[in-house]
Amino acid sequence: MKKIAVLLSGCGVYDGSEIHESVLTILALEKKGFELTFLAPDIEQHHVIDHTKGEEMNEKRNVLVEAARIARGNIKPISSVSSDSFDGLVIPGGFGAAKNFTKWAFSGPEGEINADVKKFIIDTARAKKPITAMCMAPVVLAKALSDTNINASLTVGTTEDKSPYDIAAISQGMENLGAKAKMCKVEEAITDIENKIVTTPCYMMDTSITAVNKGIEKAIDEFEKLL
Amino acid sequence: MKKIAVLLSGCGVYDGSEIHESVLTILALEKKGFELTFLAPDIEQHHVIDHTKGEEMNEKRNVLVEAARIARGNIKPISSVSSDSFDGLVIPGGFGAAKNFTKWAFSGPEGEINADVKKFIIDTARAKKPITAMCMAPVVLAKALSDTNINASLTVGTTEDKSPYDIAAISQGMENLGAKAKMCKVEEAITDIENKIVTTPCYMMDTSITAVNKGIEKAIDEFEKLL
Repeated sequence: MKKIAVLLSGCGVYDGSEIHESVLTILALEKKGFELTFLAPDIEQHHVIDHTKGEEMNEKRNVLVEAARIARGNIKPISSVSSDSFDGLVIPGGFGAAKNFTKWAFSGPEGEINADVKKFIIDTARAKKPITAMCMAPVVLAKALSDTNINASLTVGTTEDKSPYDIAAISQGMENLGAKAKMCKVEEAITDIENKIVTTPCYMMDTSITAVNKGIEKAIDEFEKLL
Repeated sequence: MKKIAVLLSGCGVYDGSEIHESVLTILALEKKGFELTFLAPDIEQHHVIDHTKGEEMNEKRNVLVEAARIARGNIKPISSVSSDSFDGLVIPGGFGAAKNFTKWAFSGPEGEINADVKKFIIDTARAKKPITAMCMAPVVLAKALSDTNINASLTVGTTEDKSPYDIAAISQGMENLGAKAKMCKVEEAITDIENKIVTTPCYMMDTSITAVNKGIEKAIDEFEKLL
């Protein structure tokens, strides 16, 4: 049974892992019969967002503790495990990727990346084990791999369809870090066969949960082929 | 397009709505082409549970604000709407049903029920509009309907398969309130055709997300037929 690490950045689109993407990813992976281990950094969230208003709350929350809500309690600190124990890595999206894993939401490609997340991604990619990242999470791959000679093809969506975000600017930011940014529709996925990396846009586009689910199913099908 | 109210009790299995069940319910409903409106009571959670430990945290959180994480921000207070505006009601599970909607987790069938939740359920049931409840949420229906002459057939699981909970005791509690408690496997659903109520066990049983998804798809298929 293949062992897959699922890396979470909290619990909620605006300050953690996007919940729909996380759950649909878990479903797609479990349907394949993979054994899942949930991981998160045991660090404070950048901030806490009131999801009814999009405004910051005067609270502190821990990324691992909140991510445990999605994992139904069964989660480990990423610092406590080695990528050697896994056959592949999957990172659902949400702003946690750009606020807790990296600081892309505040400083763009220059923003710092969490050291444990960076090491786990680099070690997995160098070992030629497959990685899948959804939504905003490809920027974390771009940032981590900018210190390697791996120039991965990655997507955060397409400028051809409606998006609440600036797909062109984020794509350019990934290019600045050495990645090859690809345009991709929400129901599709980009597979970098050489580097064994699959990415799909999900809620980076103005879309529905049904379309997001199709993109995730396609990405996990591709991920399985690369295993 | 049928308008469906999705009632949430927070965000996380131990103190709110069960996240997997909520997302899979949203997916199943959107696949049917229904227009969804997310509702929650604008009240303080009974408590906040650290999902890594199962222990209470020294924090206060609001049911509506946390449920907005699952709804991606798009949610209304249940007190602000009438059941007249909807064609049906769906309530995913999680301990929020037994801690925030009712106090079943602490006082069993005697525990109080939130007045707005109670009114919405009774009005929907009396109007013969379909209701679906998952996991622990059927106890909320049993409690709300105990003040009516509606004796609904409801399930919270089966004593034949493994469960982390006392299915026999919870079933007996629902019977004490006038409901007819039925045994049901996780991939199945119980349909009370006369009262237009569908229930399915989900994570009340010791199970997988794949099996939970099958039960939810079956329940939403039945729900659609009753609309």
